[in-house]
Amino acid sequence: MVKSNDYLQLAVKLPEREYPIYIGNSLLSNTQLIAKHIAANQVLIVSNDKVAPLYLASLQGALNQCQVDVVILADGESNKNQHSLFTIYNALIEKQHHRDTTLIALGGGVVGDITGFAAATFHRGVRFIQIPTTLLAQVDASVGGKTAINHPLGKNLIGSFHQPHAVIIDLATLKTLPLREFRAGLAEVIKYGLLAGGVFLKQLIDMLHADFNQTSPQLVDIIATCCQIKASFVQSDERELGSRALLNLGHTFAHALEACTQYKRWLHGEAVAIGLYCAALLSNHLGYLEKKYVNQIDNLLEAASLPRRIPQDIDTNQLFALLFNDKKIKNNKLRFVLLRSPGDCYVDEKVPLTSVQCVIAGAVQGN
Amino acid sequence: MVKSNDYLQLAVKLPEREYPIYIGNSLLSNTQLIAKHIAANQVLIVSNDKVAPLYLASLQGALNQCQVDVVILADGESNKNQHSLFTIYNALIEKQHHRDTTLIALGGGVVGDITGFAAATFHRGVRFIQIPTTLLAQVDASVGGKTAINHPLGKNLIGSFHQPHAVIIDLATLKTLPLREFRAGLAEVIKYGLLAGGVFLKQLIDMLHADFNQTSPQLVDIIATCCQIKASFVQSDERELGSRALLNLGHTFAHALEACTQYKRWLHGEAVAIGLYCAALLSNHLGYLEKKYVNQIDNLLEAASLPRRIPQDIDTNQLFALLFNDKKIKNNKLRFVLLRSPGDCYVDEKVPLTSVQCVIAGAVQGN
Repeated sequence: MVKSNDYLQLAVKLPEREYPIYIGNSLLSNTQLIAKHIAANQVLIVSNDKVAPLYLASLQGALNQCQVDVVILADGESNKNQHSLFTIYNALIEKQHHRDTTLIALGGGVVGDITGFAAATFHRGVRFIQIPTTLLAQVDASVGGKTAINHPLGKNLIGSFHQPHAVIIDLATLKTLPLREFRAGLAEVIKYGLLAGGVFLKQLIDMLHADFNQTSPQLVDIIATCCQIKASFVQSDERELGSRALLNLGHTFAHALEACTQYKRWLHGEAVAIGLYCAALLSNHLGYLEKKYVNQIDNLLEAASLPRRIPQDIDTNQLFALLFNDKKIKNNKLRFVLLRSPGDCYVDEKVPLTSVQCVIAGAVQGN
Repeated sequence: MVKSNDYLQLAVKLPEREYPIYIGNSLLSNTQLIAKHIAANQVLIVSNDKVAPLYLASLQGALNQCQVDVVILADGESNKNQHSLFTIYNALIEKQHHRDTTLIALGGGVVGDITGFAAATFHRGVRFIQIPTTLLAQVDASVGGKTAINHPLGKNLIGSFHQPHAVIIDLATLKTLPLREFRAGLAEVIKYGLLAGGVFLKQLIDMLHADFNQTSPQLVDIIATCCQIKASFVQSDERELGSRALLNLGHTFAHALEACTQYKRWLHGEAVAIGLYCAALLSNHLGYLEKKYVNQIDNLLEAASLPRRIPQDIDTNQLFALLFNDKKIKNNKLRFVLLRSPGDCYVDEKVPLTSVQCVIAGAVQGN
């Protein structure tokens, strides 16, 4: 980790190429920093209608030497779809962007994932930069090169691996983040706490039970630690052939919950929060995780004001069926990321389907 | 090159992985050969409404141990689009294919390119096998991992690099290939002759001026040589950062011709034939290629009964404008693959636009 006056700098080191993650204040208007990662003189910024009014002008100001075009998508997970993707392609082609163009994602995970996928597939792959403006995107979605759009039947089913050229985390953007979005980001932070365990989890527990909010000075360390954990998983298994799957803790349930509510009811992080509780419950049901840890996880999610139960109006049969569109399925078998204890997660390929149904029933509100 | 009783075998050797090209008769019903390249027990075959009635049943017969699903697209370049792509995704998702599924492209270049792109992007990348049934796909499109769909404004603008796990060339399929399709394939064969020059070009000239057709015994050698040439370009520059661009000889003009006729007027190889003539004319116009070679190329294309001139009803201004959607553009400059002589091609980044306009005018029928 490098510290300068302006920012912290981490690196994601891959066999083919290394790229930096910068964490600091006022970075999205830092012309010099951004210019280092632009390929030629064309840029397409993709943002959404919530973020653009706040930060687009600053970013454009930092790019005044380039042809800058802009696509503004409607905010929300339900817009991470085919239609938005082709809106980006059309802009690139109508404005005659070439193979040496650079795409910039200015927004949360939705903007980042879809911009990354457009960059992966326009002219068979062009450069892109992530400027994540939500806590969730800063600690998780912007790092690691997973890009995707959703299909009505399943989350992130269409996508590719395409690493950014840089991730620029401007902490100032958190100050304008709606509280609900901030809390959703905490769900992924808690996921990293459960993956890492030990000191980091302890730090999180203390923080979440104290007076912690989106201007807290501890945030920079929290974000840096999450990025570091993610980078180490990505470095050892870029294409998710093995250990990277652990980053999906809570996500098998979360993706099915999102699909069965047409990606409209929850923010991704909120679905992950319910998913983490379900994963804990399943781990306990199978005899791997002590009940006290289930309670600890439940309390931690509660301290972050996150949902943890499946609402009663969800059709649990449909939810169960949607689990079978999960990307982790191998040889027709569902695979779940489970916990033996915080800091000790593993992938289980032999979970009986009756246990899954039982856990879903047990996670319904009021049960 | 390996020869067995049943087939010739070449290899494409890439840093990450090597894959075989098999060339022989009745290979698409060879259960053992195909089974070697299937990942698990799920297969999706993509074909078109011309090829499926002829060969789908044989291929399905060879896969009787698997869950086999099928997507049949309408034939033709104008169907290599967003709609067809999502038809494939929908089938994969509705039939619950997992990350260990295998896609099989049974058809020409259109089917191969779109199936390859679906395989590149479903679940962030699954396995696929090319079974090319046209001469053009056998000598060119099926090898090398370029996958794509077209955009109304430009050819192959959306795509990715994704190598197949095997290319299975069944020579028997050429016997049912319409003559027009066969000739279109010869355009790419002639391109390889111009790239290689020497003995191979001489062999081609002799053949095309003799009694040569789609049952000629020389075909197996011709196809193998083209695949070998292509494999060597791909091996030295998989992502087209340098020398692989030479494989685009004739294609800058061809892609613009296809786009300005909505991909409906010509088969891809026919557009390439006109494009090769334009590239020769431009090379001569710039003083690099002697006039006698322009005539030789013109005669060679004529011997294959291919179009060589731009029809008078084409709007040459629109054609010129469409050149600027080419993927090879760098620093806002068009790049053309030109010839100094057969066997000696190069990429020219400094072609004056007036020369291009002049050559377009000179290539119009009757000029």
